[in-house]
Amino acid sequence: MKFMIAKTPPPPYYAVIFTSVRSEGDQGYSEMSEKMMALAKKQPGFLGVESSREYLGITVSYWKDPDSIRRWKEHAEHTLARQKGREVWYRQFKTRIAKVERDYEFDNY
Amino acid sequence: MKFMIAKTPPPPYYAVIFTSVRSEGDQGYSEMSEKMMALAKKQPGFLGVESSREYLGITVSYWKDPDSIRRWKEHAEHTLARQKGREVWYRQFKTRIAKVERDYEFDNY
Repeated sequence: MKFMIAKTPPPPYYAVIFTSVRSEGDQGYSEMSEKMMALAKKQPGFLGVESSREYLGITVSYWKDPDSIRRWKEHAEHTLARQKGREVWYRQFKTRIAKVERDYEFDNY
Repeated sequence: MKFMIAKTPPPPYYAVIFTSVRSEGDQGYSEMSEKMMALAKKQPGFLGVESSREYLGITVSYWKDPDSIRRWKEHAEHTLARQKGREVWYRQFKTRIAKVERDYEFDNY
């Protein structure tokens, strides 16, 4: 998947910063990852997502409010994927929930 | 540079989410990037940094409070680097300042 800079509305809104280190091999990760990305985009309050992985993977998803984030966390299919993440796909991860207070951008295209 | 998941203190603290698309060629970017990373780590209030680039680059730095972020933004050498970023290294970027309200982690190492 090729990610672009997310076009988010003016702050305030919320960011979920998910930083991770993968375990060895794909083990169904890529397929589930694309599926979850497509599903996240359909959730109420979803504003955008950015992702990149070298050794460390960083995925930042943007949401309208904490309720949207909670609902997505509790979504049945996502809950199963998160469980498999702990059991199979990730060695280590950290999730941070943050309120975006201001932003600015630069575009030279 | 190989980045690990940042060991940040318990929230609240602040995150600067810097998402970018580079222009063509290195043009001194790698050297300046390492220099700025080393300099940032020495600033008061710096808590950690995570970075990854595929097409999209995502760098998240963590700070004690908005004052630490402002001081780093106004740091003389960093101001020169930011200016060259706009002129030479980046096609596009977006910076978001966010207050981390909660976090959780998983470690299976």
